[in-house]
Amino acid sequence: ARRAIHAGQSWFVVSLVGVCIGLNAAIISIVTEWLSDLKMGYCSDGWWLDQNFCCWEIEGGDTDVCDSWHPWSTVSTARGFVYTAFAGTFAFVAAHLVRSLAKYAAGSGISEIKCILAGFTMQGFLGFTTFFVKSITLPLVIASGLSVGKEGPSVHVACCIGYFVATMFKRFAQSEGKMREVVTAASAAGVAVAFGSPIGGVLFSIEEMSHAFSIRTMWRSFFCALMATVTLAAMNPFRTGKLVLFQVTYDRDWHFFEIIFFVILGIFGGLYGALVIKFNLQVATFRRKYLAKHGVAEAVFLALITALIGYPNRFLRIDMTESMAVLFRECDGDVDNICETATQWRIANSLILATVIRIILVILSYGAKVPAGIFVPSMAIGATFGRTVGIIVRAMYRTYPQSGIFAWCDPNVPCITPGTYAFLGAAAALSGIMRITVTVVVIMFELTGALTYILPTMIVLLVTKAVGDMLGVNGIADEMIRFNGFPFLEKEDHAFGVDVSAVMKHELHVLTETGMMVQDIERVLAATDVKGFPIVSTDGFRTLIGYIGRTELLFVLERFRKVREVNDETPCSFKSSGAGGHQHLGMDEDANANVFESASSSEGLQFWPWVNQTPMTVSPQLPLEIVMQLFKRMGPRVILVEDHGMLTGLVTVKDVLTFIATEKFDHDPSFEERGGL
Amino acid sequence: ARRAIHAGQSWFVVSLVGVCIGLNAAIISIVTEWLSDLKMGYCSDGWWLDQNFCCWEIEGGDTDVCDSWHPWSTVSTARGFVYTAFAGTFAFVAAHLVRSLAKYAAGSGISEIKCILAGFTMQGFLGFTTFFVKSITLPLVIASGLSVGKEGPSVHVACCIGYFVATMFKRFAQSEGKMREVVTAASAAGVAVAFGSPIGGVLFSIEEMSHAFSIRTMWRSFFCALMATVTLAAMNPFRTGKLVLFQVTYDRDWHFFEIIFFVILGIFGGLYGALVIKFNLQVATFRRKYLAKHGVAEAVFLALITALIGYPNRFLRIDMTESMAVLFRECDGDVDNICETATQWRIANSLILATVIRIILVILSYGAKVPAGIFVPSMAIGATFGRTVGIIVRAMYRTYPQSGIFAWCDPNVPCITPGTYAFLGAAAALSGIMRITVTVVVIMFELTGALTYILPTMIVLLVTKAVGDMLGVNGIADEMIRFNGFPFLEKEDHAFGVDVSAVMKHELHVLTETGMMVQDIERVLAATDVKGFPIVSTDGFRTLIGYIGRTELLFVLERFRKVREVNDETPCSFKSSGAGGHQHLGMDEDANANVFESASSSEGLQFWPWVNQTPMTVSPQLPLEIVMQLFKRMGPRVILVEDHGMLTGLVTVKDVLTFIATEKFDHDPSFEERGGL
Repeated sequence: ARRAIHAGQSWFVVSLVGVCIGLNAAIISIVTEWLSDLKMGYCSDGWWLDQNFCCWEIEGGDTDVCDSWHPWSTVSTARGFVYTAFAGTFAFVAAHLVRSLAKYAAGSGISEIKCILAGFTMQGFLGFTTFFVKSITLPLVIASGLSVGKEGPSVHVACCIGYFVATMFKRFAQSEGKMREVVTAASAAGVAVAFGSPIGGVLFSIEEMSHAFSIRTMWRSFFCALMATVTLAAMNPFRTGKLVLFQVTYDRDWHFFEIIFFVILGIFGGLYGALVIKFNLQVATFRRKYLAKHGVAEAVFLALITALIGYPNRFLRIDMTESMAVLFRECDGDVDNICETATQWRIANSLILATVIRIILVILSYGAKVPAGIFVPSMAIGATFGRTVGIIVRAMYRTYPQSGIFAWCDPNVPCITPGTYAFLGAAAALSGIMRITVTVVVIMFELTGALTYILPTMIVLLVTKAVGDMLGVNGIADEMIRFNGFPFLEKEDHAFGVDVSAVMKHELHVLTETGMMVQDIERVLAATDVKGFPIVSTDGFRTLIGYIGRTELLFVLERFRKVREVNDETPCSFKSSGAGGHQHLGMDEDANANVFESASSSEGLQFWPWVNQTPMTVSPQLPLEIVMQLFKRMGPRVILVEDHGMLTGLVTVKDVLTFIATEKFDHDPSFEERGGL
Repeated sequence: ARRAIHAGQSWFVVSLVGVCIGLNAAIISIVTEWLSDLKMGYCSDGWWLDQNFCCWEIEGGDTDVCDSWHPWSTVSTARGFVYTAFAGTFAFVAAHLVRSLAKYAAGSGISEIKCILAGFTMQGFLGFTTFFVKSITLPLVIASGLSVGKEGPSVHVACCIGYFVATMFKRFAQSEGKMREVVTAASAAGVAVAFGSPIGGVLFSIEEMSHAFSIRTMWRSFFCALMATVTLAAMNPFRTGKLVLFQVTYDRDWHFFEIIFFVILGIFGGLYGALVIKFNLQVATFRRKYLAKHGVAEAVFLALITALIGYPNRFLRIDMTESMAVLFRECDGDVDNICETATQWRIANSLILATVIRIILVILSYGAKVPAGIFVPSMAIGATFGRTVGIIVRAMYRTYPQSGIFAWCDPNVPCITPGTYAFLGAAAALSGIMRITVTVVVIMFELTGALTYILPTMIVLLVTKAVGDMLGVNGIADEMIRFNGFPFLEKEDHAFGVDVSAVMKHELHVLTETGMMVQDIERVLAATDVKGFPIVSTDGFRTLIGYIGRTELLFVLERFRKVREVNDETPCSFKSSGAGGHQHLGMDEDANANVFESASSSEGLQFWPWVNQTPMTVSPQLPLEIVMQLFKRMGPRVILVEDHGMLTGLVTVKDVLTFIATEKFDHDPSFEERGGL
């Protein structure tokens, strides 16, 4: 029965997390839309209406002829000025809020959450203030027109919600493992609502976020993403009945010869990823050195520059998702004239320019001290580039319709669809920057429903991955982790060729099984700030008895002081009193005081119920690779090194990372090592 | 440079595996199609043409009016007789081939491959004979009309190809880990080509097959599935340019009130899974007891019964995939009159009957001694049931178009689309029997491209999973593993509440570090057939020194005999000679004879280079759960139990399974335990 209650509670918690994420996403979407339109004009029927709702009664897509909607000015230059002014203001408000209220709300947050899921704590990163500030600044940043996306921040906000909801339930608050599961599920829901792609979210949580994969985590992610997406669909923030911002149906099939051009798109994706990551890291170094105190000014400057440069270019002026919707379109029923043969070269120029400018803007903007994701900007860049390639290929086909490879085309139907090139380009750029593949296929597929293009998408991503592996870059999230020096073991294994004994700490602060007094323990505690202490036998052979965490030791000591008199010379014992080897007690605040009373016998304080008598141990000759696998797959905080029963050392993830960083041994990131097949 | 070669070889091997799987799948598809049509008639233009190719010139879908195609008879009864006779013949040939050539070719094979991927060996299961016989009997079985699918066997065949190709490369043949990776990738490609669903294949390999998930394995699966699917697409076996057998586009959106009916479909899926698994296991028990020697007769009998019962029912007579294509269709441009309001009740009756009969046939047929999968039959059952529900709901709507929940419908467009109910029913039944969720969503999605129905699909599968968890069944693959008694640890963790010392073997066959002679070792080898021997110190304290495998011991002994004289009294030493602790040598046949010469010093035979000096050890108090996690996540064959340096026991996966099976401790498969969130 108790299990059923627990199971029911889990369902309830995950549902609640999903619903909250869906609600929050819907609100963020509506506010973003309204703020974006505010840059262009206002609605006389009510200031709270965005352009779509203001012109709701008007049939047809051409909202320019709506009477209630007033642009700020009739003069184009003045409009541009107002547009820029609003952009700067939004960026200022957002950056200021982030700086004064919640520094953790800046950036995308994916790197940090990866570390948290791998077991590292970052106080306040998933806190309520972070959540609140990120939720209200995200619409401002998107509306300011900065070349940043909402997906990374959306994942961060979702994880905050997951953490916040779960802490309200004791069973989750107490178990770090359960908490991580909920946060993983929330990250899936975050992607699900950002893209309207529930399965894409689940895969994202598997491929990018989760450290230890299990079917149960996958299933929780599925459920959480489902609840969030259903909530979002029920709220229906865009009143279109669609979850996604752009849905395209490609009726025409692709031709095998087009693979040549798809390969170009794949290569672009790989190069784009490597280039942006390289330069963005340089910008980050510069920012850390010179701009650390000028976060607000930087954000405002970037927003003004982006608005000024972007306004004249038709693909940069509009919202990135809108521009993608235009670029993905097939040419039948063309409304934006981007398919006209007459204007094709002008449009191609405009697209090339948009690609280059956007790349520079992304390099400069990602990492600014405002909420900022990189998914959508990357996709927008890929789409402009892809459409350019598509236009060029179509022009080639029109010039030589019968020659060479184009002979395969059926002359009765359009042979080349530039929209599909834009679609594939977007997939390539997204995969290039994040270094994820399966997730990208599913997201692109869920975004557009382009079923026939699943094979080309896979081919493009294959090329992107090969190029990326050859250039030796990791995904931007991993590079940011390395740049920031977070303790994080990469998922793939490396061969080191050394034993764990080369890495372990030899100088240990240990406690002896018996013969210590309270003052001895306090001295040890004061002398060091290590997180825990191995316990060894008193006989001088350093036989390993167990391990006790620092917090547990402090907690137990304090509780003893409450139930009995403890002075400096009270003896302490960590020796197990025989049978009850299982009672490894935690730090439950509700623990019956009896436990403490019975553990504080006349002989002194008995610590053994809190001693972990079976810490993870390895032999000193064990290769470091296996120790790393143990860390990654079993997730202990420390591993003790024991040589035939004798304690000889201790190793933590940090020791391994320090070793990797300092030794600089032949760590050429090769093809094979990066999981490059 | 060597790494680059290795990486290149990996790419090459996985590509080759993918291409072979694609080719094989194309051939199987073409042969299946031809054999299926042969039951109905023959082509006068050439006996090798199936109905589609025979009538290729004829425009339009109505192939009945094709002159070259001759049905076997003009009399319906006679046609039925020929149909049944062919079905029996096909089944006889298939079952006979399986019995006389390759017993392992029977069944689906997924259970066994799961065990193989978990690290257990099954000689010949992935061998060439199995591959060959399964490849040629699969078309016969499908064409015989038995209620079995081709997906499970297709995965098995793909894994055989993967294994076969990989053994041709030394680096793979020598490493069990690499081999498993290739087989996992091949299983993804198997599903990919069976369903035309590459991403579904990748997810299947993650959710169902792979034991230890890693990004690299996922990426290999992706690549292998891509190569296989591209090859299949290039072969274009159906000449339709489509990978999938049925593609539907649902233009109309679903309504929130329909969730009520979707829940019914989900419940059906869960009940169907539990029911079929329960009765199928009973049939399997009966088969093992009474039909073990009558496999051929059983298969023929089943084929005849299936043909006789199925022929009169329009949904049972045609191929299961064809029947699904009909059932999934929207009612616009109806060609099979299954949407006519006038005939709706007759059709509903026919569908109900088809559902019930097919369920019985699946229960009887799955497990017969022919290649047999359960994916497609389950989907077909779900589709007939779902369409029935859809017809009933539409009838309700037509009767009360304005009342209650139907008030939400837009009166101008059709409100209820029965085809979508069939689609969701198929998803529910597939998920109910296999207990996989995310994979099913992606497969259904890739099969049909029904983007708007992703949320309903997820809701249905959620209900299916909840029902299945409440009824406490595992997927049919896991139940078959349990039924057959294969050694396999389930993926999810259980709480046992005992220490590893309760499970471990105490009576060990050990070798001592020094002081043994060849005759002692041979006596130990003869006395037992355990797979390996712990090595302990000679001083009587049983201090653990290392571990050596039986095969390694035999191999080394034999090689020593080749390079020097060995008699019964030659002393043997397992003691490490200091520094070179790393040289844990394998059994490379090419190993330089020098190693053996230097290891056979005047003092006797030195075994230490082959001793694993760092076997995995745990303390006897370690909870059994953690030991199981170690087995599952780290994958050792044995774990030694060491108490402060002293060897006290040894535990293998089999010990744990025996313990679980005999103890029968409170092993109520609860909600939570099954990963039920």
